[in-house]
Amino acid sequence: MTHAPVNQADLIIRARWIVPVEPAGTSLRDHALVIGDGRILALLPQAEATRRFRTGSVVDRPQHVLLPGLVNAHTRSATCLMRGLGAGLPPLERQQRHVGPAEARWVAPGFIRDGTRLAMLEMLRSGTTCFGDSYYFPDAVAALAVEHQMRASVGMLVSERPTPWAQGTDECFARGLAIHDQYRGHALLRTHFAPDTANALGDATLRHLRLLADELDVPVHMPLHTTAEEVRQGIALHGLRPLERVAELGLLTAGLSAVRATEISAEDSARLATSSASVVHCPTITLLQAAGLTPLASLARAGVRIALASGGTDAGNRPDLFDEMRLASLLAGGLSGDATALPAPAALAMATLGGAQALGLGEQLGSLVPGKLADLICIDPGSSGMAADGWTLAQLLHGDIAKQVSDSWIGGRQVLEDGRALFFDEAAVLAAAQAWQQRLGSP
Amino acid sequence: MTHAPVNQADLIIRARWIVPVEPAGTSLRDHALVIGDGRILALLPQAEATRRFRTGSVVDRPQHVLLPGLVNAHTRSATCLMRGLGAGLPPLERQQRHVGPAEARWVAPGFIRDGTRLAMLEMLRSGTTCFGDSYYFPDAVAALAVEHQMRASVGMLVSERPTPWAQGTDECFARGLAIHDQYRGHALLRTHFAPDTANALGDATLRHLRLLADELDVPVHMPLHTTAEEVRQGIALHGLRPLERVAELGLLTAGLSAVRATEISAEDSARLATSSASVVHCPTITLLQAAGLTPLASLARAGVRIALASGGTDAGNRPDLFDEMRLASLLAGGLSGDATALPAPAALAMATLGGAQALGLGEQLGSLVPGKLADLICIDPGSSGMAADGWTLAQLLHGDIAKQVSDSWIGGRQVLEDGRALFFDEAAVLAAAQAWQQRLGSP
Repeated sequence: MTHAPVNQADLIIRARWIVPVEPAGTSLRDHALVIGDGRILALLPQAEATRRFRTGSVVDRPQHVLLPGLVNAHTRSATCLMRGLGAGLPPLERQQRHVGPAEARWVAPGFIRDGTRLAMLEMLRSGTTCFGDSYYFPDAVAALAVEHQMRASVGMLVSERPTPWAQGTDECFARGLAIHDQYRGHALLRTHFAPDTANALGDATLRHLRLLADELDVPVHMPLHTTAEEVRQGIALHGLRPLERVAELGLLTAGLSAVRATEISAEDSARLATSSASVVHCPTITLLQAAGLTPLASLARAGVRIALASGGTDAGNRPDLFDEMRLASLLAGGLSGDATALPAPAALAMATLGGAQALGLGEQLGSLVPGKLADLICIDPGSSGMAADGWTLAQLLHGDIAKQVSDSWIGGRQVLEDGRALFFDEAAVLAAAQAWQQRLGSP
Repeated sequence: MTHAPVNQADLIIRARWIVPVEPAGTSLRDHALVIGDGRILALLPQAEATRRFRTGSVVDRPQHVLLPGLVNAHTRSATCLMRGLGAGLPPLERQQRHVGPAEARWVAPGFIRDGTRLAMLEMLRSGTTCFGDSYYFPDAVAALAVEHQMRASVGMLVSERPTPWAQGTDECFARGLAIHDQYRGHALLRTHFAPDTANALGDATLRHLRLLADELDVPVHMPLHTTAEEVRQGIALHGLRPLERVAELGLLTAGLSAVRATEISAEDSARLATSSASVVHCPTITLLQAAGLTPLASLARAGVRIALASGGTDAGNRPDLFDEMRLASLLAGGLSGDATALPAPAALAMATLGGAQALGLGEQLGSLVPGKLADLICIDPGSSGMAADGWTLAQLLHGDIAKQVSDSWIGGRQVLEDGRALFFDEAAVLAAAQAWQQRLGSP
């Protein structure tokens, strides 16, 4: 009889169900996840874990479901402070009369900090452990993510027009690279490029962007084909669909994410799939803006990598990926006529592995595979009125699941316990946000 | 100087905001709702309420929003016990291999009672105070609604095929009328006819149904135009679209609700609008079943009365009308290309007054108008991270609002307080439901 050697672990989490996302469609009963040095050491039956690993720290979640932490691939976190501004108006009018002026007047590091804290808290409580932010003052966002122990990628904005963050492309690149350098090798922080939409950028800017993205090996998250009008305009300006132009300029690689893409032809799909580029699908804001209907079922069939995201939240929505999974699944079925076009396991894969891939972290995150970072969430299905044994992944898509996230770990460190965020002063975050909302609400 | 006479009231509720639904689009700050004999006596500024009414009972909700209780116009409450059965399979296969056999084996009064209790509890906590149930054993549902002090209309089923409830139309009508007679004049209970879809019923049955509906003056809730296939089949069988056939047989009146209608032509819309019939829109299950896309924006433009409902919940969804309002609004905008097609106040009107009208209770419920029944819900927006002053109706459609329903009153009697259902043993309800789910989950 041979004995496997006994190894040391930092933490063993035992749960009723573990859903590793890879291999696809698997749910493991009464298994344990073993963690050491912030990474997953093993995923195995509980008895075997006890036999093979020694640890001082065991967490038992006997009725819970353990999942990879969700990855919100595109956020504009601080926009939550403008939630509901100009509600009921058409999107363009809202933007021009309310959101735009509010941004011009108020967006500065203090606004970004208070808004991003609220968004981070809302994300953590609803199961997100990593987010890709593409909004002003990414330096402030990066500092906050580290302060509150969340994993993030912050966007190095690229804009030819002046913004609250920079006066043009030179300043954009300079400030972006400074952030990239500051956090190089950081355990929690990454960067990506977050350029304006292709139509708003000249060839020279896009070529320079491509060189830098290759050199730094960081992803490029660009709003692409977000409306039919954008595609028409691209053809009028350059004689090419924006995706074609981006491809000609060398940016259509596995590092590209087409953010909020809705207008995707079969040929676009094939291009995206061949290059292993991602689509970052934002179901709620796409509908809120009546921007078009993303052909999710056919994208998935074509093999395009898909991530899920909440996007900006100034229209009243929340950065809750359970909402986005549910809506993505309902829409994919409803629009394609095939109710099974996006079943729950596929939606979960988009909200985890898909997001990780879009942020260039597919080898590090997004599934419970030994060697990956221990970014985890635990859900208590008991309070939903369902027995754990009756639990199916489909229930992830419905009901109040976001409120039932009991625990989260990021890099093996517990950051949420019994629904409380351990690295936030929740009352202070809410008070600061409310003060801003009153300031913005008064004329 | 004249003095208005001082009147006696049973209860005065003072809230930061009151949204009466009628007149449309109104939000009243620092008003009070005055209640006597279970009905609304007045809605007026707080100071005036104090001057004009004397009462022993004042409820202060200084940061809350007071709304009419939501009306879920079409439920199949006990189906919640089958939540998730056959998840991931196509709808027809789910029905044939899982839900159908489970119904045949288990549906009996005990199942109905345990399932309906869970659904009622979930509805109450998420803001519903009145529901129109159309599922087996309406006698059991009626008794439960009375026991737990909820307002309900129960469906007198009409089916030509044998079901767990009755062997055919004669028994259906006999058992239905017995329930109708038993609850005649009851403060909480109403009845409606809940026939099978028109294609499954012969002309004789529909004529008899029409006579009885006229005689008893009760609504008829019929699944109509739920899929393109149903419409095709109706034409093949009878040479008429089902709605045309129903109209020829005299059933297209203000009492008719076309439940789960998706396939609605411009001519259908005009017919429905002219007759003041209702469409009961079930956004979630319509998408879950990929049954078609309800043209909500054009229905609303045509002036068709629209109610919202959750429908059956065996596919995993929940009877939460905030979910349905949100989805209805997002879909109406996304599908029509007009983001403002169904703004929050319009969605709220569907979930309140629209539902009341569909149940024949439009004069009694659905808005905070003096003379109507005091069915009310109170929402605490504070915990959503929003200041009450920053609150807009748009926020009803997003986030975790269902969890923030703090209080409910039905006919002036408080039934929910601080999120707790006063007439339910919550632990017992959950335990009973979980026992069923384990029974159904085992092969």
